[in-house]
Amino acid sequence: MDRVRRNERLAIMTKMLSDSPNEIMTLGSFSELFGSAKSSLSEDTDFLKNLFQEYHLGQIDTMTGASGGIRFRPVPTPADALATVSSLAASVSSPSRILPGGYLYMSDVLSSPKVVEAVGAIIASQYYRAEPDFVLTMETKGIPVAMMTARALNVPMVIVRRENKVYEGPAVNINYLSGSGTHVETMSLSRRAVKEGQRALIVDDFMRAGGTAKGMLDMMKEFSVTVVGICVLTSTAEPVKKRVENVRSLMVIDSVDELTGEVSIRPAGWLLAAADKQKKDDMKTDKG
Amino acid sequence: MDRVRRNERLAIMTKMLSDSPNEIMTLGSFSELFGSAKSSLSEDTDFLKNLFQEYHLGQIDTMTGASGGIRFRPVPTPADALATVSSLAASVSSPSRILPGGYLYMSDVLSSPKVVEAVGAIIASQYYRAEPDFVLTMETKGIPVAMMTARALNVPMVIVRRENKVYEGPAVNINYLSGSGTHVETMSLSRRAVKEGQRALIVDDFMRAGGTAKGMLDMMKEFSVTVVGICVLTSTAEPVKKRVENVRSLMVIDSVDELTGEVSIRPAGWLLAAADKQKKDDMKTDKG
Repeated sequence: MDRVRRNERLAIMTKMLSDSPNEIMTLGSFSELFGSAKSSLSEDTDFLKNLFQEYHLGQIDTMTGASGGIRFRPVPTPADALATVSSLAASVSSPSRILPGGYLYMSDVLSSPKVVEAVGAIIASQYYRAEPDFVLTMETKGIPVAMMTARALNVPMVIVRRENKVYEGPAVNINYLSGSGTHVETMSLSRRAVKEGQRALIVDDFMRAGGTAKGMLDMMKEFSVTVVGICVLTSTAEPVKKRVENVRSLMVIDSVDELTGEVSIRPAGWLLAAADKQKKDDMKTDKG
Repeated sequence: MDRVRRNERLAIMTKMLSDSPNEIMTLGSFSELFGSAKSSLSEDTDFLKNLFQEYHLGQIDTMTGASGGIRFRPVPTPADALATVSSLAASVSSPSRILPGGYLYMSDVLSSPKVVEAVGAIIASQYYRAEPDFVLTMETKGIPVAMMTARALNVPMVIVRRENKVYEGPAVNINYLSGSGTHVETMSLSRRAVKEGQRALIVDDFMRAGGTAKGMLDMMKEFSVTVVGICVLTSTAEPVKKRVENVRSLMVIDSVDELTGEVSIRPAGWLLAAADKQKKDDMKTDKG
């Protein structure tokens, strides 16, 4: 008989997998911890895999072969992702959030742990295949979202600074065109922060014209780092043409009207399309 | 018979509790989800409580009465907390981390999700009783640690900025004496960010003389907010007398010698004392 009962094993495995997203845990390590046969653990894994799927708790994958094991990813279903972003869009669509200049106050949602964790999981779910080595963001407001994306991907986060700081050591400084495109600003990244040949995922809270993202893209060139994607929580519909390509955003701001107090903000089309596709697929399965 | 089997309930409850630290979940809500009798759920709760304790997975509390339910807190054992901080101190004690001016490069550990999550759990564990309404930090390097502390406490994080930004709206600006005490700097906090009468926990990555923390303390006075504690990941042994009182730090830097390349950094005394006390208590229990 197994030393640790199945009930216990399932709860402990759930906790350990959940605490370490995108980390491969070998059955051998669980076998050692529990004193269980690998056949029991295979059954446990299948059990958890189905349970997580049924209750929308994320995705458990089993990998066979030499590097075999199990891995948890906090991937939401397309419908759940859309629901999260829709509810976020609704909650920031309030006239009371409009600031002078047509800006939208979002600092509170951007540093609510629950919100950024859900957003980070949605962003990460789109880039597991791209296998980034780190998440890159520029200070300050995007840091929590970038952090939670990095957590879900199980990679470090790297912060680009506005200026060179003594406690960052030697740094590469570059100039970039600010949002309005009218003046030049500086960004700075510690030389130790990243390594040549790595792969970066750029994550930020907001994009208008894409000047900051273009700056980060240029910065990565200086470090000979490949950028595998650019993802922001919110972008504006205008200008349609951004200074960078292949940008994914979760929400789109169509307009913010200071005079009438109207805010038009919606989930991005790809989220709707994904939820729609899932619905159709589910219907096919039901018919089959 | 229960609609959802015990095996399944235990794994799902583990995932849900673990995903929502310091949130009270009622047995009623689980009863609805599982179609189970509350007596079954009480047994499940006791089971998980003991299991989490045995495997050092954090703390599950049961609350009786009208607001009754269960709550998970990612509280590490004193020995685990000490081990985490000791290993962190060892990993940053490398001569290669010394920067010109005697600074220590720590940006990588400060934005490693695993490290800051563990650090956030340790910090939070010291302030559950103080019941802060939010975690306050000043940009930039302390944000990830503050975020993970806020996550463990289940409260929002609030970021003090170096200057007033258009997307933060009307703000309160105050001047403070910078670390060296030689010049005056400005910090800015959006008027919407916090409410009168709330309770703040100040969290930052580093403290030398405490100038920044004193600034945040003064800022909170402007908002009529009570500060329930100040906690930093790393502080310097010198100056012994900081500009603020009741500071808790996890690590203490005794010296960084640019010439010899020697770095002396150690876990704070309170962590050693807590681990020691636990050891003695455990021995008493064993004897009893």
